[in-house]
Amino acid sequence: MVTTREIELDTNGYCDIIDITNRLRDVVRESGLSAGILTVFCPGSTGGLTTIEFEPGLQKDLPEFFEKIIPSNKNYHHDDTWHDGNGFSHLRSALIGPSITVPFVDSQLTLGTWQQVVFLDFDNKSRRRRLVLQLIGE
Amino acid sequence: MVTTREIELDTNGYCDIIDITNRLRDVVRESGLSAGILTVFCPGSTGGLTTIEFEPGLQKDLPEFFEKIIPSNKNYHHDDTWHDGNGFSHLRSALIGPSITVPFVDSQLTLGTWQQVVFLDFDNKSRRRRLVLQLIGE
Amino acid sequence: MVTTREIELDTNGYCDIIDITNRLRDVVRESGLSAGILTVFCPGSTGGLTTIEFEPGLQKDLPEFFEKIIPSNKNYHHDDTWHDGNGFSHLRSALIGPSITVPFVDSQLTLGTWQQVVFLDFDNKSRRRRLVLQLIGE
Repeated sequence: MVTTREIELDTNGYCDIIDITNRLRDVVRESGLSAGILTVFCPGSTGGLTTIEFEPGLQKDLPEFFEKIIPSNKNYHHDDTWHDGNGFSHLRSALIGPSITVPFVDSQLTLGTWQQVVFLDFDNKSRRRRLVLQLIGE
Repeated sequence: MVTTREIELDTNGYCDIIDITNRLRDVVRESGLSAGILTVFCPGSTGGLTTIEFEPGLQKDLPEFFEKIIPSNKNYHHDDTWHDGNGFSHLRSALIGPSITVPFVDSQLTLGTWQQVVFLDFDNKSRRRRLVLQLIGE
Repeated sequence: MVTTREIELDTNGYCDIIDITNRLRDVVRESGLSAGILTVFCPGSTGGLTTIEFEPGLQKDLPEFFEKIIPSNKNYHHDDTWHDGNGFSHLRSALIGPSITVPFVDSQLTLGTWQQVVFLDFDNKSRRRRLVLQLIGE
């Protein structure tokens, strides 16, 4: 049994961190499936998906970490190709990856209590984003 | 066909690297499934899953790498929120990600000979950990 | 419904970036499946999978990034074990991860227009690589 849904997000870019956990919970519940996996996929090369405890401290720490290892104020070869200044966004996305898979059991995601699924928008501008949510299960 | 199991691990924290490959092999064999995917998921925001050649050298190299890019002796905003001193653990977990997916064929995981599935406990204390293992296949 | 295929790649190592998107599209089309997930898995501990915009600038930026955070000219404990000089390859692989999952709908991968699935060969020599492609869907 395969169910595919899409959700849309408005983001600010620049490592904006969006907690999408409740929207994923809704999709699992509405699917009527009991057990299986939920795959969340970002169709685009400047976003990423992971989990984190969504609290104000880490919402500062995570962008600072990316700024340290892949600075936004550095020139990248990508920018020589397109002149859109978001080479850092592409590198951060390739590092974190465009998808995440979370099992669900009894129609509940198996997340920890302090663990949220977040979409990271690494682009250098505001975006309306579309994410693909696909459930496979029974 | 969906099968869900849990395993428990006792870890030392501080980037403890636990080879869980044999336990995964057992779960695949016991499932009776022939082909499909195994998803391993850590319900918690201070662990991670990846693969590595599980040998003594890399068991030192990997913690040293994390210490370099996300030092444990630095103060993080997360620590201002909770005062539990494990901001570095959360960042490392968000970077590596809480899940891994491995296909199996003929009831055998498709791992390379020198490739083991490892759970990384990034927390700053010993933990009893629970991992969700879910198989989807036929 | 589970379908498993393998593809082979000849790579140059040293963070060689191989765009495998068209080969994945072929496998999805030939499977006859309409909706589900495609998992690509590298059986080996010196490769990785992610997505990126496959253009000449980023093809330079990504290796430069890895060279910065996990230098190839540094000695690693792994090299004391095996003396094959590819400790950096193993660490990069553990960081990026050996698999990627992409949903497909209407027999089309849900990739963005400027987003390609790439295999990264981090090893320190040319390799013939084998990747496992597994589709689960209906």
